[in-house]
Amino acid sequence: MAEIATTGNKGKGIRSDCFVTLELTMAGGINLRLESKVGVMFGESIRTLAFEIMGFFGIEHANLKIEDLGSLPLVLASRIEAAVKKLVKTKKDYLLPILESNKYTTSRDRNRFSRLYLPGNSPAQMINAGIHHPDGIILDLEDAVAPEKKFEARFLVRNALRSIDFYRAERMVRINQGERGIEDLDYIIPHNVNLILLPKCESAEQVHTVNKKIREIVTRHSSLVTHHSSLIHPIWIMPIIESALGVINAYSIASSADNVVALAIGLEDYTADLGTRRTLEGKESFFARSMVVNAARAAGIQPIDSVFSDIGDTDALRENVLNSKALGFDGMGCIHPRQIKVIHEAFAPSSEEIEKAEKIVFAFHEAEKKGLGVVALGNKMIDPPIVKRALNTINLAVKMNKLAENWRENYEEI
Amino acid sequence: MAEIATTGNKGKGIRSDCFVTLELTMAGGINLRLESKVGVMFGESIRTLAFEIMGFFGIEHANLKIEDLGSLPLVLASRIEAAVKKLVKTKKDYLLPILESNKYTTSRDRNRFSRLYLPGNSPAQMINAGIHHPDGIILDLEDAVAPEKKFEARFLVRNALRSIDFYRAERMVRINQGERGIEDLDYIIPHNVNLILLPKCESAEQVHTVNKKIREIVTRHSSLVTHHSSLIHPIWIMPIIESALGVINAYSIASSADNVVALAIGLEDYTADLGTRRTLEGKESFFARSMVVNAARAAGIQPIDSVFSDIGDTDALRENVLNSKALGFDGMGCIHPRQIKVIHEAFAPSSEEIEKAEKIVFAFHEAEKKGLGVVALGNKMIDPPIVKRALNTINLAVKMNKLAENWRENYEEI
Amino acid sequence: MAEIATTGNKGKGIRSDCFVTLELTMAGGINLRLESKVGVMFGESIRTLAFEIMGFFGIEHANLKIEDLGSLPLVLASRIEAAVKKLVKTKKDYLLPILESNKYTTSRDRNRFSRLYLPGNSPAQMINAGIHHPDGIILDLEDAVAPEKKFEARFLVRNALRSIDFYRAERMVRINQGERGIEDLDYIIPHNVNLILLPKCESAEQVHTVNKKIREIVTRHSSLVTHHSSLIHPIWIMPIIESALGVINAYSIASSADNVVALAIGLEDYTADLGTRRTLEGKESFFARSMVVNAARAAGIQPIDSVFSDIGDTDALRENVLNSKALGFDGMGCIHPRQIKVIHEAFAPSSEEIEKAEKIVFAFHEAEKKGLGVVALGNKMIDPPIVKRALNTINLAVKMNKLAENWRENYEEI
Repeated sequence: MAEIATTGNKGKGIRSDCFVTLELTMAGGINLRLESKVGVMFGESIRTLAFEIMGFFGIEHANLKIEDLGSLPLVLASRIEAAVKKLVKTKKDYLLPILESNKYTTSRDRNRFSRLYLPGNSPAQMINAGIHHPDGIILDLEDAVAPEKKFEARFLVRNALRSIDFYRAERMVRINQGERGIEDLDYIIPHNVNLILLPKCESAEQVHTVNKKIREIVTRHSSLVTHHSSLIHPIWIMPIIESALGVINAYSIASSADNVVALAIGLEDYTADLGTRRTLEGKESFFARSMVVNAARAAGIQPIDSVFSDIGDTDALRENVLNSKALGFDGMGCIHPRQIKVIHEAFAPSSEEIEKAEKIVFAFHEAEKKGLGVVALGNKMIDPPIVKRALNTINLAVKMNKLAENWRENYEEI
Repeated sequence: MAEIATTGNKGKGIRSDCFVTLELTMAGGINLRLESKVGVMFGESIRTLAFEIMGFFGIEHANLKIEDLGSLPLVLASRIEAAVKKLVKTKKDYLLPILESNKYTTSRDRNRFSRLYLPGNSPAQMINAGIHHPDGIILDLEDAVAPEKKFEARFLVRNALRSIDFYRAERMVRINQGERGIEDLDYIIPHNVNLILLPKCESAEQVHTVNKKIREIVTRHSSLVTHHSSLIHPIWIMPIIESALGVINAYSIASSADNVVALAIGLEDYTADLGTRRTLEGKESFFARSMVVNAARAAGIQPIDSVFSDIGDTDALRENVLNSKALGFDGMGCIHPRQIKVIHEAFAPSSEEIEKAEKIVFAFHEAEKKGLGVVALGNKMIDPPIVKRALNTINLAVKMNKLAENWRENYEEI
Repeated sequence: MAEIATTGNKGKGIRSDCFVTLELTMAGGINLRLESKVGVMFGESIRTLAFEIMGFFGIEHANLKIEDLGSLPLVLASRIEAAVKKLVKTKKDYLLPILESNKYTTSRDRNRFSRLYLPGNSPAQMINAGIHHPDGIILDLEDAVAPEKKFEARFLVRNALRSIDFYRAERMVRINQGERGIEDLDYIIPHNVNLILLPKCESAEQVHTVNKKIREIVTRHSSLVTHHSSLIHPIWIMPIIESALGVINAYSIASSADNVVALAIGLEDYTADLGTRRTLEGKESFFARSMVVNAARAAGIQPIDSVFSDIGDTDALRENVLNSKALGFDGMGCIHPRQIKVIHEAFAPSSEEIEKAEKIVFAFHEAEKKGLGVVALGNKMIDPPIVKRALNTINLAVKMNKLAENWRENYEEI
């Protein structure tokens, strides 16, 4: 192992982070050098935390330099722990307490209109992401993290899952591809994650491998599990189809396991795999998107569209969302908070859809009242999934203030 | 069992039907009350039939009320039999004679441009449907019949199959989904049906289940089978793809059995399953329609498109048919007789297609005469499959009186 | 066997060919009658070759008539040998020496923008095809050869493979469908062919059957194999998807064997199989083309588009190529040399594509220098196939003079 390790970020534009340089020495105790603009106010607590972590890992002699740029304790702790673990082999983890308000679970069929991608090694964007109220927040360990930063990002993401308030957004992590992704799970499964994004998924086996690892981790942590623990959470999986082979196996992937709740498509990688480039019109990906929508629906899960890259063009984004919805998608990714509102508005049920849903839900309740096993609208038998979707539409419309909560009273009067 | 049963329809807009109320009593014989506008002319024959059916089922004491709205004997008989069977368990069936002119079979590759849907419990539309000369007439037991009417509809459909002249249209029945659909077969297989429409088909197994039941019924009726019997008919199956899972399994379904002759798509249900809505442009169903066309052709059977719902818009219908034809469909459903002519005209080979076909067939025969392997028309090389398609077009044009049978003689003179 | 055999072509428009009539007789030696416009100059060498071939096959008595239209020795020899073999059963083959400049192999991932179809029984077009520099030249034994000429075409194609300079174009043969195609392999595998086009491929089994036959032929010829022999060549396979069933099995076919390097689609046959007609817009084949592109990419091979039939319309061709490329195709067929240049220009990498490829290749070399196992562009991990494709783009751009060979030097300065 190297004798000097660095973690974290510094330089132009970096904030809410710190840059840690750790050198193990043979003698002389812990020599801590702190550079911080907020040193006057927080210097003492930073020092205390740093010494506590050194002690926790049993490090007695070291030069520790912390260039602080306004890092919260969860960031500072992750940087120091990652630096330590670059130099020292240990099985101990320095865990901050889990925020009580983060101990929520998410339901299988919850709304997933928007999910906001956040780079897994950039604390600044994480801290306030929840206030934009995306349906989901993704801490990304894959494409948004440089190869040499992948190790330390795991500690930041773990600490963020425990300590950052996500305002009830679904708590998602995109793991890496292949073996590294399976290792990532150790850093996130025990820490209140709601959903794992599985990138470049090409076979059902990849889902099985993830689930096998999840079960191992849960078993290993069972002695620690209390009725408050995140391990009792359902942990959902959203595979991302990003290659031609993934498209071929889309249905097999979508139906591979009970905890797969959505199937996403990633068009940048898909079009690269196809040897072509992504266009606004999207002829090159029309087949793949159709396959993904159809596969997800056939498996009874949510089809989720790709991100839209042009952050500045709100009109094109709205057009894109309306097209996605028309094709049957239930949501899409976003890469900037300003996209969230447009996505929510465009995916929201239209008044025409709400009216249709009212009729179905009303017929459903009438059938229930009469003790009929079968729901019919006029002569048309209504399948249970259609009823369920209509119920979702109604709930959503109410939640989005597009329908009065007491709509049924008004409806029955008509 | 209930002591009072009602069957049939009455009220505004109902004609050619009757409403039957049957109450079993302990004594007093058959007390028949007939209300009919045509009672003066047909009252006696209605009474005679009613008493005959009561006697046939061994019912000696009952109050029987018939509110007649001009029902033919086949309708009246079906209503009374259904009422009896709601109250009495019996294995007897009151069958009218099979119309001799209905004892025709249909060929595997017959034209299936149009098939007219008729609600299975509404006699008025059935009686004259044949005079519009659709290629097929569907007596619909599924979506066009309300749940509480499904039982009695079986008797009406059975009687219609035996007694209504369909003017050589292919005689089709759409059965219900699931177990109820399998039971429906008892009421139609022995009665001269040509083709069974299998709704919401999602797997080859569903076709196998239908065929197993058909074989059981045929075996059971074998003692009754004569060389005139409908049981010697081939009974074709047309599965309808109406869900995302059905689209995935389209080829498996299309190639599931020898008597599957066509594969249809139902877009209202499909788009509902996709969580989107059907548009005129049809982007949301383009993939599914392509899958169905390709699957059907791969299995060597006919791809059949969905119905077009806007009865009033003939131009949009024509546009729709031309698009269907261009995608490779061989026919589509219709829900009103006025759609039939437009569908036939638009699916028929155009004069442009016929002219092109003539040129190709002529060039082909010339090349054959000269022993050449390659046929050229202007700059264009003409491959053997193009020649085959041209020959098909010519045959169809001749059959539809759009081309003289001796066209080649005239053509060669030019 | 017949006592008189004829081979070759004569009549209006025929050149570079000859028409041979051979009658075996009981006595009288070889009676050769030569009719040739170039008899004064080449008569003696034609006679010499004819007598040599008669002797080679041990024919002592025959009437041999040669109507020469400027045939090269390779053509003359193929016509005489075919005539002999129509009358005499023999295992001997009259082989001309293999042109040294033809003993090249082709690489799996070579450029396949254009492949020029040539009728397999028409020598005139073969002789100069190479000077137009298509990426591949197809000697077609299938649709471009009349049934009664298929036997003799095998000898012409075999001799062309041995003796015609193709200017380093990939040497391709399209064999016939079914059993006849498997027999065709005997005439081409031992003679320096680079790639076999497998028409109307509908299953992986068809590829396996071809490969089994190739292995048998190679084994049989092993005693003759030297390190210069064509048998050491890799022999690639390009299946052509031309039917609805082929589309369904496209991925299974594309991934059926290691020597399958490309998957082509044939739209004339496909649209005929669909029962529709090919349009410029191509809605009717959009699904099939998407399936073929996706299947080929999933299998890591090249997707190749159909020919464009309207030889005269260069603008429409260019439009067609740009659409093909946008969908992800790597090349297409052509039926006239004048199409080659348009196809190459339109498939060539755009300056935008070249720039992107430069970045990827540069990042790849930087990663290599630093000994990193993983290539990243910014934070984005670059998959090996993407790097490989970028390298191809760069090589191609250099080869097509769209990029300086020393681009990296300039690039690193930026």
